[in-house]
Parts: sequence; C-alpha cells; structure tokens
Amino acid sequence: MWKLANDKKVLIIGLGLLGGSYAEGLTNLGYEVGAITRSPESIEYALDKGIIASGQTEVTEEYVKQFDLLVFCLYPHVFLDWLKQYQSFIKPGALLTDVTGVKRSIVYPVQAMLRDDLEFIGAHPMAGKEVYGVKNATSKMFSKANYIVTPTLKNTPEGIEACEELGRILGFRSVKRLSPEDHDEMIGFLSQLTHCIAVSLMVCKDSENLVDYTGDSFRDLTRIAKINETMWTELFYLNKDELLLQMELFSEKFDRLKEAIRTEDTETLHEIMKLSTQKRKLFDN
Amino acid sequence: MWKLANDKKVLIIGLGLLGGSYAEGLTNLGYEVGAITRSPESIEYALDKGIIASGQTEVTEEYVKQFDLLVFCLYPHVFLDWLKQYQSFIKPGALLTDVTGVKRSIVYPVQAMLRDDLEFIGAHPMAGKEVYGVKNATSKMFSKANYIVTPTLKNTPEGIEACEELGRILGFRSVKRLSPEDHDEMIGFLSQLTHCIAVSLMVCKDSENLVDYTGDSFRDLTRIAKINETMWTELFYLNKDELLLQMELFSEKFDRLKEAIRTEDTETLHEIMKLSTQKRKLFDN
Repeated sequence: MWKLANDKKVLIIGLGLLGGSYAEGLTNLGYEVGAITRSPESIEYALDKGIIASGQTEVTEEYVKQFDLLVFCLYPHVFLDWLKQYQSFIKPGALLTDVTGVKRSIVYPVQAMLRDDLEFIGAHPMAGKEVYGVKNATSKMFSKANYIVTPTLKNTPEGIEACEELGRILGFRSVKRLSPEDHDEMIGFLSQLTHCIAVSLMVCKDSENLVDYTGDSFRDLTRIAKINETMWTELFYLNKDELLLQMELFSEKFDRLKEAIRTEDTETLHEIMKLSTQKRKLFDN
Repeated sequence: MWKLANDKKVLIIGLGLLGGSYAEGLTNLGYEVGAITRSPESIEYALDKGIIASGQTEVTEEYVKQFDLLVFCLYPHVFLDWLKQYQSFIKPGALLTDVTGVKRSIVYPVQAMLRDDLEFIGAHPMAGKEVYGVKNATSKMFSKANYIVTPTLKNTPEGIEACEELGRILGFRSVKRLSPEDHDEMIGFLSQLTHCIAVSLMVCKDSENLVDYTGDSFRDLTRIAKINETMWTELFYLNKDELLLQMELFSEKFDRLKEAIRTEDTETLHEIMKLSTQKRKLFDN
C-alpha cells in the first residue's frame, strides 16, 4: 500500500517556480528530493541552496529508477513527450503526479499510455506568481493557495490519499477533489477567463497617458495581464471548448449590461448590480 | 485674490465617506469646517469626533452665508437641485468645488447656472472604499489616490490654484489638471469600464460552488463588484456616450482574443499577450 512516508524518494521533473517550491518544501520536511531539469544553472542553484539532494540535466534510467514519487512540473506537451520516451525508466509501483493547470487533456492520455505497474494521479496546485524560475521558488506561496486532486476510476484509494497528503504536507490552504471535467470548467472560468479579460483590458489603450490616473480598480483588474504567452496559449488550447463557453457566458452578461446602459434601463441595471454586490459578499475573507 | 489660507471657513455639503474625510483632514489642518447633511446621526457623530465645528440638517441662509469654500459631496442630480434652490444663500466671492466622478455633465451646467459673483471648479478625488458613511471617513485614504481638477475657460487662475491647493493639503498622492472631456474619457475607461467588467464577471455563475476554488485572480477582478447601484447607475448615465465607447473598445479586444483561441491562431495570441505583458509593466509600482 502506497504511503507518503518520508523514506520515499521524490523526483521533481522541471525545476522552475513550482517544481522548485515543491523541492524546497519536501526537503524541509525530510524527504530526499532529486531533480531533472534542462538548465544546469537551476540544478546548481538548487544544490547550492540545499533545496535538492541531487540533480541532473540528462534523463537516465539509473537516476530515474531510484524514485518512488515523481512530480511533473513541465509544459503539458513536454510532459506527454517525456512519458512516451522515458516511462520505461520508472521504478515499478511508483506514483506519478503533476501540476498542470488543465486536466482532461492530461489525465486521460497519461493514464491511457502508462504502464500497468505505475499510477498517475493529476493534481493542480493553484499557486503562482508573476515571476519564474527556481530562484523565486518558495513553499510559502502554498499557504494561501488551493490544491486540487483530480482522480479517475483508474486511481487507487491509496494513490488518491497519497496525492492529497502531498498537498496537505506542502501547506496548501485547502485540498479538494474534483473530476477532471469539473476542474476544467472551474479553471476555465476562474482562471483562464479572468486572464483573457485582464489581457483584453490591458491592450485597449496606450497606457503611457493612463499611468498617472490609475487607481486601484484598473491595477486590480490587470494584475494578471503580465502573462507567459507560450504557457498560457498551450493551456488555452488544451481547454479550448470550456474556455470558449466561459468567454461566451461573460460576453452575454457584459452585453446585457451594455444594452441596459444604452437604453437607460434602470431596473435591469439595479438588479444586476444588486446581484453582483450580493454575490461578491460571499468572497469577502 | 482667492487664497486657501486657513482663516477660510469650509462648508461640506453631504457628509458621507468622502465629505467626512475632507472634513476630518481640513479640521486637522486648522480650518473651521461646517457641514450640511440629511442625517442628524452623521452630524452628531462628526461633532462628537471633532471632525466638524458645526453642522445642521436644514439649509438656511444664515448658516450657508458664513462659508468661503463649499465642497459638494452629493449625488449629481442632488447637487444640481441644491444649487438651483439655494445658491442665493452663498456668500459673494465664495469658491465652490465638488467630488463628482463625472465632469462634463456637472461642470458645464453648474457654471452656466451659477451667479456671476461665485466660481465653481470641478474636482474628482479618485479615492474610495467599499464602505460608506462618515463613520468610515478618514483623510488617510487620500495618500494613495489621485486628485484631478477640471477647469474650464470660466475659471480664474486663482480659483484653479486654490482648488489644486486643496488636493495638495489633503495629502493626495498627485494633483493633476484635465479638461472635463479628457477626464470623462479617462474615467469611462479606467473606472466605469472596469466596474462594468467586474459586475458582469461576478454575475456569470452561482458563486457558492466557486468560493472554495478561487485564487487571487478572480478575487482581484471582482473586488469592485460590490457596488452602490443607485450612485453608479447615475454616474453611468451621465457619462453614457464615453462609457459605451469604452465598452465597445473592450468588446472588440475580447472578441479578437476569443477568435484567436477558437482558430488556434498562435501568432496573434502571442502578439496580444506580449503586448499585454509589456503594457502592464508600466504599472508596476
């Protein structure tokens, strides 16, 4: 039975902001953490800071087969390619998880291709910063974030429990379970749609003239408009159907408000704003 | 020549969050501050806290005529009605200003109806909180906010200078001058459009199921979705032409992004996101 005791050895594949933060948190908890990542500087930095016990840029069977838990912190397509190429290196009985921000298009293909003696359970740590790389990594950023596990019928109760335990020991504010479908709908709305709105607002005007006058409203709405175009484009495509539905939903509401302003339909405007005020109160914390 | 020395007596008309914050700040600076407001409790509270030296709920000539500077902190239509009814009470040579969030539809009508021996100069302190009333008033909230003066050809250099001085002594982060037209375009975009976006996003879904999963993105984008429907509806109508233009502009950008996602037009997506990232950097502070 799979248990996340700290005699387990953990391999982080992709040592960036998230991977580095997992490594730091797990090392501090007494786990032996290794890393495979493309950049020698990242390995060097993480070894120097004591965030990892070992690391290399090459994927070798000798190295990979030591580990009991593998955490994939890669771009989605790189993750899928990695598994195709190297899953034969992985120790039988190992548990695999990830940090990818979309789930249907990852979880099902991975579980379909995976060796029978391995288990993959998808996870999405909803943590992020506007900075990148292992040098900005810190497990402190998990304390305000949610961690979502997306099990399927292919997962074992022990695998699910171990993956949830990982979120708990890393200090996430909450650990929840969702189906890949529910996850993708939720993330399409709460995260992908909000980024689309922020980006669209940010590119409306020449900002030079506006900086002097911006209050908190515009700053709040565009905080996430600094965006890694390669990663987000990939995530948008992998959740395209859901994201487009959420964008349509928003457009409908926005157009209804626009029409009410145009026709000075005070009753509708008051109704929308009261509903908005009432709904937002649920989020006060 | 009009100078804002602190032997001037200041009347606040409408003692809410903004009016109360002006009163508190000016009293602390040594000005004698009076107030007219509808609620006896607000007067009582402000007298008790020493924020005002005097105050009443009735508009009487005897009271109004003492004051050299009048600051109107009323809903736009209430402000216009007040002047029609009571401007005969005001001391000759007095200076009038306001805090209204739209300017063309206030400044020109007021200046057109005003007695020749009075001067009105529009101002917009871009400060606010999600709470209301004199009990939440504090001039501390000005330190992070901009103060915009919107003079016209009807204003005197002394009047403009006194109004700008008012913003400086109240501790605003910056004091700027804009035409009423430029002000309304700017505010239509930075403030009114952002509120329309936040409200539209907030009413998209049943939030109960989402609260557990929201990260900072959704919270940031909906912080201003708690909104006073009466005031904002009035402000939207008074700036309707500009607001609708800004809403159209946003819809265009949003639709372009949607289309690029739908057709997987990676080049366009990368271009938009890079532009967004570059523009947002100007706002880092």
